[in-house]
Amino acid sequence: MSEGFFDAIKAGKIKPPESAKTLGIDILSHDPATHTIELEFDGRPTFANPIGIVQGGFLAAMLDDAMGLAAASTMNVGEFAPTLNLNVQFHRPAQIGKIQGTSRVIMRGREVLQLSAELRQNGKVVATATATSLKRTM
Amino acid sequence: MSEGFFDAIKAGKIKPPESAKTLGIDILSHDPATHTIELEFDGRPTFANPIGIVQGGFLAAMLDDAMGLAAASTMNVGEFAPTLNLNVQFHRPAQIGKIQGTSRVIMRGREVLQLSAELRQNGKVVATATATSLKRTM
Repeated sequence: MSEGFFDAIKAGKIKPPESAKTLGIDILSHDPATHTIELEFDGRPTFANPIGIVQGGFLAAMLDDAMGLAAASTMNVGEFAPTLNLNVQFHRPAQIGKIQGTSRVIMRGREVLQLSAELRQNGKVVATATATSLKRTM
Repeated sequence: MSEGFFDAIKAGKIKPPESAKTLGIDILSHDPATHTIELEFDGRPTFANPIGIVQGGFLAAMLDDAMGLAAASTMNVGEFAPTLNLNVQFHRPAQIGKIQGTSRVIMRGREVLQLSAELRQNGKVVATATATSLKRTM
C-alpha cells in the first residue's frame, strides 16, 4: 500500500508549504473515516482590511487551504489535486485573532473531489465555502 | 459633493490596508467612467503551495482585493462594501512573481454591487472571479 499523503504531513515527513505557514495553520484532528479535518488559523494583523478586520480574501485563502488538506487526506504521496473552483460565502466579520475551521470531503470520485469547509470565531461561523478539485499524479 | 473614496486612496489620504500591503498591490490605472481598475500584485514565496506555485487561496485574496478597489471607486469616504459572496475559477498555475489584474463593477445598484476580476501572468489568464458586495455607511 502506498503511503498516505496526510499521514506523511502529520508525521512531519512532508513539511507544511509556505502558504500554510503564512496563514498560521495548526491541524487539530483528522478523522480518516470521513476525511474531516479540524484546524486553526491565525488571523494576523497583516491580513487586516481598511476597517481593521480580516480581509475576506484571506478567509478564502484559509478555506482553500483547509479543503486542500481534506483532499490530501484521500491521497497518496505523489498525488495532488488542484482546485478548479472555489465558492465562498461571508457570514460575519472575523476579528484579528485565532480562527477555527472544519473541512471535509463531500464527494470522492475517481478523479473529482467535492469539498466543503467552514471557519468559526468565538463559536460563530464567519465564512463557508465549497470547492471542486481534480486529482492528478506528479 | 462628498469626496471619492478611490481618489482619497490615490492621493495618499487613505493609506493602503495591511491586507493590500501583504499582497504587494500596485494600482496602475483607474477608469472612472467604467469603474475599471488595472493593478499588479506580488506573488510572494510566502504564498507558495506544496508544488511551489502560488496557492489558489492567495489568488482568491488578490481577486477579492482587486474587486474591493473597483467597489471603492464607486463610493465616497465613509462608505464601505463588505463582500457577501466570492466565486473563483482557477485557469492555470501562477508562478511566484508579479501578477497583473483587472477588476470592474459589472452592476451598480443602490445598495448591491456586482463585481468581476481576472488575474494574468505573462499575458495569460490564471484566475477569474465574480463577487457580490453590499454598500454600507460607517
